[in-house]
Order: sequence, then structure tokens, then C-alpha cells
Amino acid sequence: MKYGYFDDERREYVITNPQTPWPWINYLGNEDFFSLVSNSAGGYAFYKDAKFRRLTRYRYNNVPMDNGGRYFYINDGGTVWSPGWKPCKTELDKYECRHGMSYTQITGAKNGIEAETLFFIPLKTWAEVQKVKLTNTTSGVKKIKLFSFMEWCLWNAEDDQNNLQRNLSTGEVEVKGSTIYHKTEYKERRNHYAFYHVNTAIDGYDTDRESFVGLYNEFSEPKAVIEGRATNSEAHGWSPVASHYIEVELQPGESKDFIFVLGYIENKEEDKWEAKNVINKQPAEAVIERFNTVEKVEAALNELRLYWDKLLGKIVLQSGDDKLNRMVNIWNQYQCMVTFNMSRSASFFEVGIGRGMGFRDSNQDLIGFVHQVPERARQRIIDIASTQFPDGGCYHQYQPLTKRGNDAIGGGFNDDPMWLILGVVSYIKETGDFSILDEMVPFDNDMSIAQTLYDHLTISFNHVVNNLGPNGLPLIGRADWNDCLNLNCFSSDPNESFQTTENNTEGSKAESVMIAGLFVVYGQEYVELSKRIGRADEAQRAQKEVNKMIEAVKTKGWDGEWFLRAYDFYGNKVGSDENEEGKIFIESQGWCTMAGIGKEEGLCEKALDSVKERLDCDYGIVLNNPAFTKYVIEYGEISTYPAGYKENAGIFCHNNPWIMIGETVIGRGEKAWEYYKKICPAYLEDISDLHKTEPYVYAQMIAGKDAYKPGEAKNSWLTGTAAWNFYAVTQYILGIQPDYDGLKIEPCIPAEWTEFTVKRQFRGAEYNIRIVNSAGVNKGIASLEVDGVKQKGNTVPLFEAGTHEVLVTMG
Amino acid sequence: MKYGYFDDERREYVITNPQTPWPWINYLGNEDFFSLVSNSAGGYAFYKDAKFRRLTRYRYNNVPMDNGGRYFYINDGGTVWSPGWKPCKTELDKYECRHGMSYTQITGAKNGIEAETLFFIPLKTWAEVQKVKLTNTTSGVKKIKLFSFMEWCLWNAEDDQNNLQRNLSTGEVEVKGSTIYHKTEYKERRNHYAFYHVNTAIDGYDTDRESFVGLYNEFSEPKAVIEGRATNSEAHGWSPVASHYIEVELQPGESKDFIFVLGYIENKEEDKWEAKNVINKQPAEAVIERFNTVEKVEAALNELRLYWDKLLGKIVLQSGDDKLNRMVNIWNQYQCMVTFNMSRSASFFEVGIGRGMGFRDSNQDLIGFVHQVPERARQRIIDIASTQFPDGGCYHQYQPLTKRGNDAIGGGFNDDPMWLILGVVSYIKETGDFSILDEMVPFDNDMSIAQTLYDHLTISFNHVVNNLGPNGLPLIGRADWNDCLNLNCFSSDPNESFQTTENNTEGSKAESVMIAGLFVVYGQEYVELSKRIGRADEAQRAQKEVNKMIEAVKTKGWDGEWFLRAYDFYGNKVGSDENEEGKIFIESQGWCTMAGIGKEEGLCEKALDSVKERLDCDYGIVLNNPAFTKYVIEYGEISTYPAGYKENAGIFCHNNPWIMIGETVIGRGEKAWEYYKKICPAYLEDISDLHKTEPYVYAQMIAGKDAYKPGEAKNSWLTGTAAWNFYAVTQYILGIQPDYDGLKIEPCIPAEWTEFTVKRQFRGAEYNIRIVNSAGVNKGIASLEVDGVKQKGNTVPLFEAGTHEVLVTMG
Repeated sequence: MKYGYFDDERREYVITNPQTPWPWINYLGNEDFFSLVSNSAGGYAFYKDAKFRRLTRYRYNNVPMDNGGRYFYINDGGTVWSPGWKPCKTELDKYECRHGMSYTQITGAKNGIEAETLFFIPLKTWAEVQKVKLTNTTSGVKKIKLFSFMEWCLWNAEDDQNNLQRNLSTGEVEVKGSTIYHKTEYKERRNHYAFYHVNTAIDGYDTDRESFVGLYNEFSEPKAVIEGRATNSEAHGWSPVASHYIEVELQPGESKDFIFVLGYIENKEEDKWEAKNVINKQPAEAVIERFNTVEKVEAALNELRLYWDKLLGKIVLQSGDDKLNRMVNIWNQYQCMVTFNMSRSASFFEVGIGRGMGFRDSNQDLIGFVHQVPERARQRIIDIASTQFPDGGCYHQYQPLTKRGNDAIGGGFNDDPMWLILGVVSYIKETGDFSILDEMVPFDNDMSIAQTLYDHLTISFNHVVNNLGPNGLPLIGRADWNDCLNLNCFSSDPNESFQTTENNTEGSKAESVMIAGLFVVYGQEYVELSKRIGRADEAQRAQKEVNKMIEAVKTKGWDGEWFLRAYDFYGNKVGSDENEEGKIFIESQGWCTMAGIGKEEGLCEKALDSVKERLDCDYGIVLNNPAFTKYVIEYGEISTYPAGYKENAGIFCHNNPWIMIGETVIGRGEKAWEYYKKICPAYLEDISDLHKTEPYVYAQMIAGKDAYKPGEAKNSWLTGTAAWNFYAVTQYILGIQPDYDGLKIEPCIPAEWTEFTVKRQFRGAEYNIRIVNSAGVNKGIASLEVDGVKQKGNTVPLFEAGTHEVLVTMG
Repeated sequence: MKYGYFDDERREYVITNPQTPWPWINYLGNEDFFSLVSNSAGGYAFYKDAKFRRLTRYRYNNVPMDNGGRYFYINDGGTVWSPGWKPCKTELDKYECRHGMSYTQITGAKNGIEAETLFFIPLKTWAEVQKVKLTNTTSGVKKIKLFSFMEWCLWNAEDDQNNLQRNLSTGEVEVKGSTIYHKTEYKERRNHYAFYHVNTAIDGYDTDRESFVGLYNEFSEPKAVIEGRATNSEAHGWSPVASHYIEVELQPGESKDFIFVLGYIENKEEDKWEAKNVINKQPAEAVIERFNTVEKVEAALNELRLYWDKLLGKIVLQSGDDKLNRMVNIWNQYQCMVTFNMSRSASFFEVGIGRGMGFRDSNQDLIGFVHQVPERARQRIIDIASTQFPDGGCYHQYQPLTKRGNDAIGGGFNDDPMWLILGVVSYIKETGDFSILDEMVPFDNDMSIAQTLYDHLTISFNHVVNNLGPNGLPLIGRADWNDCLNLNCFSSDPNESFQTTENNTEGSKAESVMIAGLFVVYGQEYVELSKRIGRADEAQRAQKEVNKMIEAVKTKGWDGEWFLRAYDFYGNKVGSDENEEGKIFIESQGWCTMAGIGKEEGLCEKALDSVKERLDCDYGIVLNNPAFTKYVIEYGEISTYPAGYKENAGIFCHNNPWIMIGETVIGRGEKAWEYYKKICPAYLEDISDLHKTEPYVYAQMIAGKDAYKPGEAKNSWLTGTAAWNFYAVTQYILGIQPDYDGLKIEPCIPAEWTEFTVKRQFRGAEYNIRIVNSAGVNKGIASLEVDGVKQKGNTVPLFEAGTHEVLVTMG
């Protein structure tokens, strides 16, 4: 069953039934100021850091689900409703939610009043702008009452929910004209406040939650709205909120627009006050001034549209498949931007207070984003590398507000260093900007021991080489990419976190075949990069290490029909046919086939056939098989999940593209494509009832074949799945690969595809690439012409500017 | 306005209007297993530790307030209601909530059905028993549908609310007969599960929240209840709940009882399973068996009543004042038991995940509890002292489940050590058990460096002596009793906690006059104790230190009209007439007058007159005056609160009894009594609308005269206020003081009181003490007779057993 449809023309997903199987959300904001908004206007706003600068309060996992947001209430002669259906849940005559590129428009209608609400964060602005257009569609005059509503969060979202004995006494507000200011703690250590404004005279306001909602009322029936009047309450402690009350008269057919602005202001210490205890409102008034007419708001929205036109103009696919087109051209790229901005901090599954940016995550997120805004990718790489330790190990996470490594989780995840090579290489291949390698980058944020970024890569490479186990394979440390495979943890105390508890690596034999494959892939990249910058000796040294690793995998990492996953603390095999449960794991099959280890001997093909046979199911490829049915203390968290969920035999979508790419390595275009479609949300729209999460973005996990409900997705939006699938489909299936010398073209597609075109902007020029497969092959380039000129090899050479026609003939 | 009344006969507060100004709650459970229950059955249950073993889910500061609990729904021909009004909020024909001693009974009636629901935790039982009696009060047959409902918490309450990306995949249940078992994570590191049972065959059940409630429904309108049928759902991840569905037919006048049991079970590792993935239910069935009939439940309730009869039989006051009687005899003692059990962990203001037991708090809580169950007080003292450091400093908090000091907050609160002397001395005076002094007690839980408890006291005493500042007054460290007076903190970063941020004590001159007074009071007690156990030399040495401190306070701690509060980091006066704000503070007036420092010279009287003039107001004594209106970085958190709230000039009730006691030191009975009545909840019942929190227990704070709404209370239940007011009223106003040699009688009362009696059980004997004040004095004993025999002095000597008549004549 579907709950809406794609409007590709407008780059929107249009939800037509508000009762989606889970709140379907969108993200507003592109830098600094962000909001989450659901299809019923639930969600919250924050400045930079969802933990430390939460602007509005939100309650996760609530009853009802998704309760709280920026709500508008209309009291029309006693009938109370909201344009987004929730929170009132009054049956509407019309409902439509359009999630677009960084904006959301929700329209509801009831009894002859149509309310169109638009939400977006203008570029370079620390404010969410909300435009409410009320239209009288009847032939009589309508007098209605409009209430806005949001609840302030007392800045630190964690403290806000837990430290009530303090927080219920601290809330402070000011009201001036039509603007409600939230200034809790401004008088002490904070130099920032928030405000909520409307561009019209108001007939009342409320700033105290109990006065507006009532102590025992639901959000669906706020006392003030039901009673049809504001109380002009001033919050002193308890729960400060912001609500405007406006009486609206509409002639037949008349429309009126109201512009609301939810903003965030920082003042310098010396500019904090305009009088004793009266905050300096000038900067807020300046923001308000920028958006106080419909024309200004529409101009700002248009700027945002143009911004996205530009971003999404860099790669444009025309295939015969609408679903594929909309994923590649719109939604997958959009999700990559969101993961770049959010890492794993704030979604409707990530509560925004748990953790910061991941070292591993953020490097991977780059590969789906670097073509969009390379300058931001560059800064991100420097930020990430700055949290590395001098020995090449890395803080596993860092806080976006402070950019410091997170001590609580620390380091010791031995895959982390290799991802930095991925990030840097992807950046240089996209931009050609080798200068990044010369940037002086600190260790653990200590500039006094800074080295160049290239040195960081060397140290990253060496970190693996310096941490090999008895089989010559990389020691796993706390965990590799699979945070839940905790081979040195041995936790028996349920109050311990598997990720942060003290590990016993002393004398451990725990090795990771996945890191081995990863090392071969990015070790090879390191070799190539070193050659490119004239470090031939280093390239040679590194190549030897890579070769040794390939050998180690072949001799110690092969189980007969597939690659082993690891060796445990005691040196026992993990992911072997010898095991009773967890005989085969996806990660090492992905990385070792991506690395092409043993391709000639048929190992890759065998491994991928085993994946098909043992891991594949209707909804994607599960992580391991058989699922664990009991806790294995020497494996850790992976064995704690119910069978078929998350890392225990769930379809952990992040790793599925590794198999897709592996399939392209051995040229099996049909298989790669089949795997792509299985987890790709646009193809799952018809089973939204089962899939549950948004049909326009990837989820981290889909329940696997061993689960109670196979096919049910969880943890949508913030997942490395976005970047990896974009990378896999554009670079390995469609085969458009940015490379040092140009765009390498190497598609691997189903034989039945006859043709597709990709418009690609690359280093200042634009390429219209037409790929023709009249031969009906999966892979292989017979010829490549640029502007009518035949080329040697399969790389489109670099041009400084202009538009160039590329004709690729497969065969 | 009142929302109910006291039923002193049954020791209950009876709420007759469900819409109390804030949820009015009760505590169930006396050891190990606890529940919080509001007047509409909201709240939650936990085993030992409200953070690590939360059994049922609860959402704090929700909309509506107090949403979630153990709910019963009745669907009577389409009319859906709950006996506790909430969550349905259907208007009831009758509503009554009786909060009693460790039980709560809520009765609702609608359309001829009366539902009486009883909640309690039987003694020595890890289960909450709920008895539902349904009565048909009509003359026709009634067929109704009864649903139970609660939501499981996934054990760790903090993780439960934050780690959704994991938790939404882990939930697991089993259903067998009429019992729903919650076994999330049981298959891995947990050896415990919970269950919810009803003692009748059921017509259906639900264990998946979405199936029962609906994704977008409120708790007030669960889908299953509205539709009048259960779905027999089995939770796999998402949110496991427990709901029984029972079809009930009642003849005219007929009643039926249903007994529900919410229990917690721990199994040994080897006894975890009865079959693969099937939990061992035998221990649960044994608990169920204990409460499967009305007779058994009533017997258990009766046991609980007898338990409280015994506890509350130890001190029984008969004064002419019902309010005073009910506070002394029932509610203040009851609250003392609750604070002893909970410390500051779990109330409707303390979310149960923030912190453990306080070193300072728990020692003070003892003084209101030690007479009730001295054995438990003894154990608590040992537990607390075990977290002391070898230098006498103390972990400021420890975790009740592990009994280990809390590293996050650490130590350095320089008042902490002195409270241990208070705790120990109070215990010995009540019990005569000097043997506790010989117990070997570890430091920082390290038994290898244990010393006797007496040694701990010596080290505590010396910790002050060894940490004196330039004026010979005690260095304050991170803070003294006032956690918000952070004289060495200098925090400018709003993301820092004032309590845990790194302090700058190096070179600090910050001294506390309050600790000086505290040191004189408990230093004197240490001297006396040392003498009692034959340590005359130590007593002499200690006395000299105490004398020096008295001198230091007189010369450096006196401001002219009152005692200074402190010296700051730079050596500047805090709480002096020289200051612009915060000229006078309550704490040092309390402790220095309790210590009688400068009593002869009139300092005590002057100080207390200043308190009356500057700190007193209609609702109690504020903490400081004038309130701070801006942040003072060298004072810290105290200056962050809005004026009149919390530590910034709020009526911080904990310290009001210090002034009451101070007044008794100088014999001003009227003043002591006036201060007592002002903050005593029973006297505030008529202004419940303003006071907001329960009229049967103390709140931590009442908004002071500088506040927006003076008289509004917050943070009820878990506060040292309970113990201190009980201590002040019983020992210093009524004047019945346990002492080493017997009961010392030293009342200080209003002159108009003519007589009162106190029945006191003490060291195995019972004393009926009649105090006659025909002379109309405030203080002073003219004569004291025991069993008709005149005594010298004012101490009732010890008897081994029997009942003894004591006649005290004031004059």
C-alpha cells in the first residue's frame, strides 16, 4: 500500500495520507541551523549541535508517536483542527504533505478553509521560516482563530529531559510586539537566545505551557485553543513555550499570508543587553526584517531552489527507469547531503544527544557528497584527521560543536584509519586538489605535533601494518566496521555498553578479515596516490605490504566456499562452515571481492555465489547466517539481537553495496542490479505498509529472513547506506568514476539495458555521456568518443570548461 | 482551594478531585522493589535502582503531565473510562484516591460500575500487587470489558529513552496463560525478567504497543480498548507492553475481584531456561501463587499495615493541633522513610537516572529515620563511610546497586565528612550501639586499607582541620552544603555542569563560615563521643580545635549584624552588608546559632533577628537576600537561577529547620513554631492551588518573596527537608532528644501551649511523656518525674523494658 507518490518534476515526495506507517520526515537547513519535520509538522530545530543547542523540545518514542513540533491550530467556530492533521487529528477535507529539497509544505483544509504551511530554512540563515496561507474557499465571510505553538527546549537536550529539579525553575522569556523571545540562562553563561515571530499584530500570546495547553490536556486539545483565546501568560520556570494568537477574517475567496520566523541569535558579551535584564533584540529584528513579506520569503525559497538545482545538476541520469532516475538524481543525493550534515546525530531514531560525528562514518559519508560541495568535504576531512592519534589510531567519534575527540568512547577501532584514505582519495579524484595533502593537520587537536595530511595517511596505513595478528591479518581492536562484533570485550554485565567497556586486547589473537580486504582496497589507493605525488619508494614499500596481505587472506582468510570473517580472541575461526551459527558474514565477502583477492583463482565468484545462496533473501542480503540464537560472549553485541534484526542477520543496508561492487568486479551486472533494487526505497514504495519507513530514503536496516517480520525497515535517513549505494550505483553499475586523470567509464549493467545517459559536471566542465549497449553485454567498453574524437582506454580526459559529448559503446 | 482531606484514622490523604495542581504521588515498597504512583495511577516500578532496573516505562514532563502508569480501562457499551480518571479523562460519577502508608487505593465509578483499584508491594516481595474490585451498582446485568495496561521499560532507563536505534529492535516477550513475561536481553547478559499476571482466565492480550494503542492514538483512546477487543499481539522489537483483556459479567449488586501482579525475577545462570529460548517461569509462578486469592492479598496488606503500625508506634504525639499531630505521627515520618529509601533518585522531579545516593544527603536523611529501623540505618552508615577517601574526603555520591563511589562527580565537597559524624552519633544515641564504632570500614571500597568507623570519624574531623584557609575557617572546596555556591568554579561555558566541572582550588582563599558552624556542632559531638569511649586525649585535642574555630568565626566570620556566609576565591566577603546582592545567607545563621557561637555576646540573637528582618517572608525563610539578578562568576550556580527560585533566594526548605533550632537555642519558642508552620505542608492544604505540590509531604523549595509566584512549591518528596523538620520539631520544639544516657527532655514551645504528650519507644522501653506548661514559658524544665519519682536534671533514665510514665513540668 502506498501513502503518496513521487513528484519528480518538483523533486518532492507527496504524502496524501497523514497516517503513514511511521512518521515520514524531512530535513530543513544546510549549514549551522537545522530542523527535522515530519509529515504532520512534528520534529524540532537546533543550531549546529542537536545535543547542546536544541531550540525546541521534542519527545522521542512517545504516545502518540511524533508528538510535538511546530503546530498551527485553527479554531473555526468551535471546530479545532491542524493543517498537518496532527496533533488535533480532526478529520480533514484535504491533506497533502510535500517533502522537497530542504523544504516541506503541508496543506490541510476543513470546512471551507484551506491552510497551506511552508517550512524552510533560508540559505545562510539561523532561522526557520514558516509561511501560513489561509484561504476562504466558501462563498461567505469566515472568522477564524489561528494559534501557533512550539515548546522551547532549555538548550541542552539531555539536561532538558533529565535535570527537572533545576530546569523547572529556570525558564525565562520576553515578549515584545509579535515576537516571543526565549532567554533561559541568557543572564548567565549563555550569549544566545531564540525567538518566534509573526509578521502581523497579534491578538494575544502564551509563553507558559500549562496556561496554553493545560496540565492534563493533550497537544490535540490545548485549553487556550479550545476556549478560543490566549491568556497572555509569561513563563517563569516550568515549561516555556511560544504561541501567537491571531483572529483572522477572510472574505469569500480571500487568502491571507502569515510569516512566522523561529530564529537563533548569538550576541557578543558586550552587546548582550539593551537594559538591565532586557536582551538586545537588534540582531533578531534584523533577521525578522529579512523575511517580513511574502515577496522576501518567496525570493529566499527561490534561492534555495537554485542552490539545489546547482547541487543536483552535477550528476543527472537518464535511464529508462523512473525509479532509478529519481534515486540517482534526487533522493539518494539529497540523503547524502543530510548524512554529511548530521552524521548519525539527529533523526527520528537517533535522538541527537547520544554521540557526535563518527570517524569512520564521516569518511564514508564523503563519498556520496564530495561532488556536491567539495569545499565542505575538504574541511570535514581536516576536522576528522585532526582527531587522529599520533600512532594512527583514531578517536572513534568527535563532537561537531567543539570538534574534539569523544573521550567516553575513545579509540581502538582498528578499521578507522583506513577510511581516512578513502575520504582523501575520493576528494582528490573529484577535485584534482592535491594541495590538501600538504595541509598541516594536528593529532588529537594538538597543533604542536601537526604533520601533513599525507603523513596522516602514511600513519593510517602503517597502523594496520603495525597491528597484525598471528595469521598476518589485521588485529581487530575493539571492533572493525561492525561495531557489534566485539571480539575482545567479554562483557557479562548488562549495565556495560559494548562500545565503551574496557576491552581485553592483551594477548588477543582476534583478527579481522574484513580489515584485511579494506586494507588491500585502500592500501592500493595509497600506493597509487603515493606514485602520483612522486613518492615511488613509499609506493613500493606499501605495495609489498598490500601483497603480503593478499597472500595472508588467501592462505588464512579463506574457508573453502567463502572468506572467513575473523579470528576470535583465542584464534578460533569466525564465519566458517565449522561454526554452528554465524557460518558466513557479508563484510569480508564484500571487501575481499571489492579488493579482487583471488579473483583469478575463482575465489571472488565462489564467495559471491555463497552470498547469493546463504545470505540473500527477498528484501536484501543479510549480514550473517545462520543468525545467532544465543549470546556468544566472545563475539559480543552481535549475538545479542533477536535473530534477523540489526547486526544479527538483519539486512544491514550499508554493506549491501559492497556486494554489488564485488559483483561488478567479476562482471555480473544482473546480480549487482538485482541487489541494488532490493533495498532501494523507491522500489519499495508499494510495500510501504511493511517497509514502514520513508520510500524516498534508505534505512539502516531491514529485518532479514530470520526475523519475525522480514522486510520491515528501521533507522531511516542517517546511515552510510546512502553514500555507499550512491557510490555503487553511479561508479560501479552506471560506471562513471572520477579519477585523477578524468572520468573513467566502466559500467556493469544488466545485459538487457540498451542505453542510458549521464550528464556529469567534473572539474569545471560538463560531460554528456551516452552509453550504448546494443551488444547486450554486462561490462566492457568497445569504444569511447569525446566530442566525436575516439579515445584510447576508457577514461574521458579532462577539459577546463565547456560541454562535451561523450559516446561510450559497450561491447 | 483543597483537593482532598486528611483521614488521620486510616493514615491516608484522600484526594477527591483528580485534577490536582500537579500529580500528587505516593511511594510503594519498602526494600528492593519500589513503585511511584500518582493520584491517577501514573508512575513506574523499579528494582533497587531506578536507572539500571526500571521495570515500566515513564515519560517525565510530558504533555499531558503524568502520562503512563499502570492503567485499567473499562469499555462499558462503548463508554471508555479509567478508575483513576486518567488517562481516559472521561468524567466520572465518583473519584477518590487514598494515598496511605505504602499503598494507594483509587476508586472510580461510572454508569453503575464501581472500580476500586488497590496498589501495594507486599513486604519482602519483588512485586506490585494490584487488586481490582468491580461492582455492579445497578439493578440490571452488566457486561463490560476490562483491559489492563503497562509499558515495559527496557531495563536501563537512560538507554531506554536514548538508544532507540538499538532498542527498537530488541524487545522480546513470552505469554503463557494469563501471564505476560518481559524478557528483553534475557538471552544475553541479563538473568532477570519481569511479568504481569492476572488471576483469572483472560479473553485476550496485547504485548505490542502499536497493536494495542495505535501509532497515533493517545493513551486516552487505545485502539484495542475503543474497538473492544485484544489483538493477541506478540512484540518483536518496537515497544513491548502488557495488557490483559477480560470480559466481565456482573449481576445486579455483584462484585468481582481481579488480582494483578507485576513482578521481577532473577534466575541463576544455570536455571535461566526451561527449554531453548523459553525462560524458566517457576520463580514467577511461585510469586503468583502467593497472591492468587483475595484472602492472601488482604493478609499481605494487613502485614503491611502492622509493619507501619509498628514503625509509627515509636513516636506518637498528642498535641492540641491535628495538623501538627498528623505531620509528626504520620506524614513526616513516612516521608523520612521514603527519603531514606530513595535518597534523591526517583520522584516526579528526579527522573531516577541522574545520580545515586548522596554522602551528605544520606547522612542527614538518617536523622529522621534512625528510630524506625535502626538496623537499616546501621548498614547505610557503613555503606556511606565505605566511599570515603583515606584523607577524609568523600565521594559526593555513590550508586545504590553497586555501592561504589560515583567517579563522574568525584569528591571535594568539604562539608561532606562532618555529616558522617552526625549520622553515626544519631545512630548511637538512638540505639546505644557503640559497637558500630569498631566496625572495620574500607576507604573507597578497598577493604585492604580499612579502618574502624571511629577512625573514619577522626579522619573526617581532621579533614576540616587540615583544610583551613587564611582566616582559620574551613576551605570550601567544590562547595559546601549549598551545591550551588561554587566559589572555585569560574565557569563560563554553558555546556559545563557546575557540579562536575574542573575546579580551580589552587591558591584559593574560599572559606565557608557554614562549614565552620557545622564543625563546631559536630566537632563538639565528636568530643563528647570520644569522651564516652574513653578517648580523653583525643577529646581534648579535638576540643581545642573546636575552640579555635569558634574564635575564628567570632573574629573573621561576623559581619556586624549577622554571620558572613563565606570568603570567595580572592578572599572577598560573601554574605556581607558590603555586598550589593546576597548580603545575608541563611546557612551560616543556622549553623552558627545551632552551634551557639557568640550566644553570650548576643551574636545569635542578632543573627536571628536579621534573618527575621531580611530573609523571612509569608511562605518561609529565603536562602539569601537580596536575590542575585546577574551572574557572578566567582559565586557560580547560585546566581544563575531567576530571583526567588531555588538556591537564589528561594525558600530552600531544608535549611529552615536550622533556623528553627537556632531559635530554640536562644529560647524563642514562638519564632521556632512560626517558622515550622510556615513551610509545613499540612498547614498549606488550603492554598494547594498556589502551593501546587502534595499537602502531605515537604517540597525541597518554595518560591521566595522575590519570585514571580511566591509560595509555589517544587521538587516535593525527596529532600533533606523531611528529616530536618522531623528532627527540629521532635527534638528541639517538642524537645524529646535521644541521648547516650536516656531521653533528654528540652522543649522550646510557644508560651500559650499548655500541655502535650509524646509516647516514645526507646531502647526497648516505652515512655508516656506528658509535658505540662501551666507556667506559660517557652523553655525550661522545672521538674521531671518518672513513674512518680522525681529526677535530677532533664534526662529520662534508661529502662530495659516496660511502660513508664514521665511527667515534665516546664517553668
